[in-house]
Amino acid sequence: MFKPQFTSTSPVGIFDSGVGGLTVMHSVSQLMPNENIIYLGDNARLPYGTKSKETVISYSIECLKFLLKKKVKIVIVACNTASSYALPFISRLTKIPVIGVIEPGANAAVSNTSNNHIGIIGTAGTVRSGSYARKIKRKLPEAKIYSKACSLFVQIAEDGWADNKIAKLTAKEYLTPLRESRIDTLIMGCTHYPILKKTISNVMGKKITLIDPGIETAKYARAILQKKNLLNKSKKKGYRKFYVTDTPNNFHVVAERFLEEKITQVNKIKIS
Amino acid sequence: MFKPQFTSTSPVGIFDSGVGGLTVMHSVSQLMPNENIIYLGDNARLPYGTKSKETVISYSIECLKFLLKKKVKIVIVACNTASSYALPFISRLTKIPVIGVIEPGANAAVSNTSNNHIGIIGTAGTVRSGSYARKIKRKLPEAKIYSKACSLFVQIAEDGWADNKIAKLTAKEYLTPLRESRIDTLIMGCTHYPILKKTISNVMGKKITLIDPGIETAKYARAILQKKNLLNKSKKKGYRKFYVTDTPNNFHVVAERFLEEKITQVNKIKIS
Repeated sequence: MFKPQFTSTSPVGIFDSGVGGLTVMHSVSQLMPNENIIYLGDNARLPYGTKSKETVISYSIECLKFLLKKKVKIVIVACNTASSYALPFISRLTKIPVIGVIEPGANAAVSNTSNNHIGIIGTAGTVRSGSYARKIKRKLPEAKIYSKACSLFVQIAEDGWADNKIAKLTAKEYLTPLRESRIDTLIMGCTHYPILKKTISNVMGKKITLIDPGIETAKYARAILQKKNLLNKSKKKGYRKFYVTDTPNNFHVVAERFLEEKITQVNKIKIS
Repeated sequence: MFKPQFTSTSPVGIFDSGVGGLTVMHSVSQLMPNENIIYLGDNARLPYGTKSKETVISYSIECLKFLLKKKVKIVIVACNTASSYALPFISRLTKIPVIGVIEPGANAAVSNTSNNHIGIIGTAGTVRSGSYARKIKRKLPEAKIYSKACSLFVQIAEDGWADNKIAKLTAKEYLTPLRESRIDTLIMGCTHYPILKKTISNVMGKKITLIDPGIETAKYARAILQKKNLLNKSKKKGYRKFYVTDTPNNFHVVAERFLEEKITQVNKIKIS
């Protein structure tokens, strides 16, 4: 439907309902520093997690259109809800690859587990949707899944409280039942959670492998670009551009925390 | 614009973007048990706090229209953002009284303070909007205002964690600077916060008066109904009806926690 126009120096496009997807961008940036990256945070309409499937699809189409206008060579849907609801639909609207975070995360968990006991933590919406569990069961029907919504983690990550006493106590409260189950693998099924990785890992212990779907998605994106001969051969660090749909007020502060680097400009745009 | 059709036995209408307004409903219910009450939670479109003024006004008009169709005799806007943005506008659309939570809360703080030092806690949006501060300054220009966003409180209240260690530690973290200021009055400027009243009070100490705008709004509503001779004279407990714009899944659980009573039926409706 939308005509692709890109070369290997074209940017990687990433979208999310807000700031969470910046942890995915961070992984992409670490793995492929020389790629140009465009990030779109649809924060005027966040959260996607509480919206209906139809609404999330229509929002995702608008995000996709915006990134295609920027002539990206691949689109990463860095939002669990949009990956779950909209990916099968929007990937048909363009010839460039459109990938989400759920499948790479689920696949990594399946590859890692030895005892087929896998844990999933995420927002109430993601846990209720069962999207990770479905992808895991498709590859590993005998898998035993344990999931837990960790509602407070998002705000704790955004407030910069990832390592304080409150974060530790909250993690203990949420994760103790999971630690006491037999899981050997735990998917951090919310883009905010990698910010709390150390705290989560301290509660879960060293024997349990934490899967960061953002890192897995970055690896998957690189593999696709490599296969299509679309990796950027430049030796310079690529540019990073940020677009948001609402006042970038708080975005800037949280963005730098999530990306672990200074950002220069955040542009407010209209996409609907 | 919308024709009022009501008698003294008509219901009191309350709307909010979600569950928070149920604490206001709780106050109304305690103060006027014999009144019939209709509650509308526009949870399909929450939160209002991050939306533009125009959007909040258009959502509020739809909520108002729905309640007017139910022939309510008064409308309580139990949402801080809608009270701040939409109240002056929507109150002109009907002849029945439409009241918000901010003015009664601000007035109570002004009446209570002896040293003119007033604290306000709320969501980041409410604090940034300065709506309580403006109302206070209008009545008491010499007031000194201290405000603090307590982002985690909403989720803590919804998770039923109001009295646990995490709530206590979080309250201490947010409120210590306020306790060390000279305030003698603190407005709980978010509908969720009264759920944490005990925890907040323990940190602030007995010398600081906590203002619950929900309670003040209920008193104000009763005064208006009394003046208009519209109080329900029935001696039976009135009915309570609940409407939401998205799957009432989680609503039921949180509603019973916030209202401190069992609820029988939550109806999903479309208003947009």
